[in-house]
Amino acid sequence: METVFEAIHRLRVRGAPAIGVAAAYGLITGMGEEAHPFETVRQRAEYLMQTRPTAVNLSWALRRMLRCAERYRNEQGAALMAGLEAEARAIHEEDVAACKAIGEAGLPFVRQHPRLVTHCNAGALAVSGIGTALAPVYVAHRQGIGVHVYVDETRPLLQGARLTAYELGRAGVPMTLMTDSMAASAMSTGRVDGAIVGADRIAANGDVANKIGTLNLAVLCRYFRLPFYVACPTSTLDPDTPGGEDIEIEQRAAGEVTGTGGSRRAPAGVDVYNPAFDVTPSSLVTAIITDRGIIEPPYEGAIPALVNRHGRT
Amino acid sequence: METVFEAIHRLRVRGAPAIGVAAAYGLITGMGEEAHPFETVRQRAEYLMQTRPTAVNLSWALRRMLRCAERYRNEQGAALMAGLEAEARAIHEEDVAACKAIGEAGLPFVRQHPRLVTHCNAGALAVSGIGTALAPVYVAHRQGIGVHVYVDETRPLLQGARLTAYELGRAGVPMTLMTDSMAASAMSTGRVDGAIVGADRIAANGDVANKIGTLNLAVLCRYFRLPFYVACPTSTLDPDTPGGEDIEIEQRAAGEVTGTGGSRRAPAGVDVYNPAFDVTPSSLVTAIITDRGIIEPPYEGAIPALVNRHGRT
Repeated sequence: METVFEAIHRLRVRGAPAIGVAAAYGLITGMGEEAHPFETVRQRAEYLMQTRPTAVNLSWALRRMLRCAERYRNEQGAALMAGLEAEARAIHEEDVAACKAIGEAGLPFVRQHPRLVTHCNAGALAVSGIGTALAPVYVAHRQGIGVHVYVDETRPLLQGARLTAYELGRAGVPMTLMTDSMAASAMSTGRVDGAIVGADRIAANGDVANKIGTLNLAVLCRYFRLPFYVACPTSTLDPDTPGGEDIEIEQRAAGEVTGTGGSRRAPAGVDVYNPAFDVTPSSLVTAIITDRGIIEPPYEGAIPALVNRHGRT
Repeated sequence: METVFEAIHRLRVRGAPAIGVAAAYGLITGMGEEAHPFETVRQRAEYLMQTRPTAVNLSWALRRMLRCAERYRNEQGAALMAGLEAEARAIHEEDVAACKAIGEAGLPFVRQHPRLVTHCNAGALAVSGIGTALAPVYVAHRQGIGVHVYVDETRPLLQGARLTAYELGRAGVPMTLMTDSMAASAMSTGRVDGAIVGADRIAANGDVANKIGTLNLAVLCRYFRLPFYVACPTSTLDPDTPGGEDIEIEQRAAGEVTGTGGSRRAPAGVDVYNPAFDVTPSSLVTAIITDRGIIEPPYEGAIPALVNRHGRT
C-alpha cells in the first residue's frame, strides 16, 4: 500500500479517474490475516486519502470501498476481502464503461468542432478506458471525422508532450504539439475550433479544478469565442463542494519549475509559484460532458440533480 | 560578420534592441581595404537583414547605418569606416539613454501596480542599458517601491527562467518564477496587479509583435481587468507596417518544443507548432511606454505622429 501511496503522490499514477481505480485496488493490496480487518481497511483508507487533496475521485473511490466494507463488517475477514475485491473491480469496469459513454456523449461537439486544443493528459493513459477528454476525439476519429488535436505540452511535468502526444500518435490521430503559451497564437490564427479538457474535481456550482493551465485555456476560449468543454465521469462531480473557492489546491515542489528534463535552468534558490491545479469558473465552461449525458449552464442545481437522480454510487 | 549573423540567427544575441546594436557593429566588423567599400557595406547590410524577420530594430539599425554610408559614399574608405563606427556607437549610446528614459516614463505605472508579470527577457540582458520592460521595474526598485515581478519561464527557450530570473535576482528585485500557464492562476488568486512586456515590432495601429506567449498574457489581463503595458524604444515603432497582420512571424525548429534542457521529451517525428512571436491586437494594450513618453489609445495616428514629430532617426 505504501507503493500505491507513493505512486499516486509522486504522480506515477495520475489522471483523476486512474487515481480512484488505483486507490481502490491499493486499499486491499497486501492485506493478509489481520485480527481486525475492517479496522485495518478503515485506517488504510484514511492514509491513502491524504495522498493528493484535489482529485475528488480518490476520496470518492475510497469512500465507496469503505461503504462496501461496512456491509461486511460483522463477517469473516475472507468475506470482507472478497467483497472489497469485487468492489474495486466494479469501480474499474464502471470507469471503462464511463469513458465509452463520455466518448459517445461528446461526439456531436467534436463533429462540430473537429480541431481541438487539449491540456495535460485525459486520455487512455490517465483513465482505464479510452480516457475522458480524449474519449470523444477517439470515437470521432474512428468514425472518420477529420479531427486534429493541438496538444499543450503542459508544463511543468509535460504530460501533454510525454503522454498525450504519445497516445494520440500511437492511435493515429492527427495532432500538433505546442507549448502552453502558443494556444493564443493558434486560436488567433484560426487553427482551432475549441478546447476539451478533463477535470480533477467539479464543484456543485460547476467550477472546475483541473491541471494548472486549464484556466488559462478557458480564458483564451472566451476571448476568441470558442467553446470550452470539460469531460469527466460522474465520480468527478462533487456536490458536497459548493464552489471552486472551497477546493484545496495542492502546491508542488519548486524543482518541477526550475528544472526541465532533469537539468536546472533557473538560478539556484529562486522563489517559485507551482500550484498543481487551477480553478476555472463555471461561467467559462460551455458544457460538461459526462457518462450520464451533457450538463449545460446554468450548472447551479444541475450537477447535484444529476448526481442524486442516479444515486451516489 | 558571419559570426554576428550566426549570433543573431541562433539567438545568442537576442532582445530586439540588442539585435539592432549588434547588427550596427557587426556591419563594419572585420572590414578591411575593400576596393568598393560602400558597395560592400550595402551587400553586408542586405545579408544581415535576413537574419530575423520579426524584430524591426534590426532593419532600423541597418537602414540607419546605410543612410550614414550614403553620406560618405564619395569619400575615402577610411572616412566611411570612421563615420560608420561613430554611427554604431551612437546607436548603442542612444539605446542606453532610451532605456533610462523608458524607466522614468514607466515609473508611475509601476508605482500604481507594483506586482507585475513579465514574459521573456526585456531587461538588461536584452538591451544595452537597464532594459525596456524591466527598466521601470529597476527604477521603481531603486526608489524603494515594493515591486515584485512574476516571471513567466517563457517556453520554449526559457528566457524568463534563464535570463530574467537571473538578472532580477542579481539586482535584488523580489521575484517569483512560474510556468507560462500559471499566470492565469496567479491573477485569479490576486497575486498580481498587471503585466509589462517588451516588443519586437509595433505596427502603425498599435498591434504588438513580441515573444510567443505575449498575446496569451494580454488576453488574461483583459479577462482579469488588469493593465497590460508594452515598453520599447521608439525604434521598435514601425509606422510603415499598417497592422499586426502585416508582420511576418518567424517559425522556428520543432526541436525547441520537443526538447527541453537538451533531452527530447515528446515522441519522435511529432508535428510541432513553433512560432517565435505572436501579435497582440492594440485593443488589449493599456499603454505603450517609450523613451519619448507614453502612448495611450487610440493608437491609430498617435504612433506615426510620435515617430514623425521627432523625425525618423
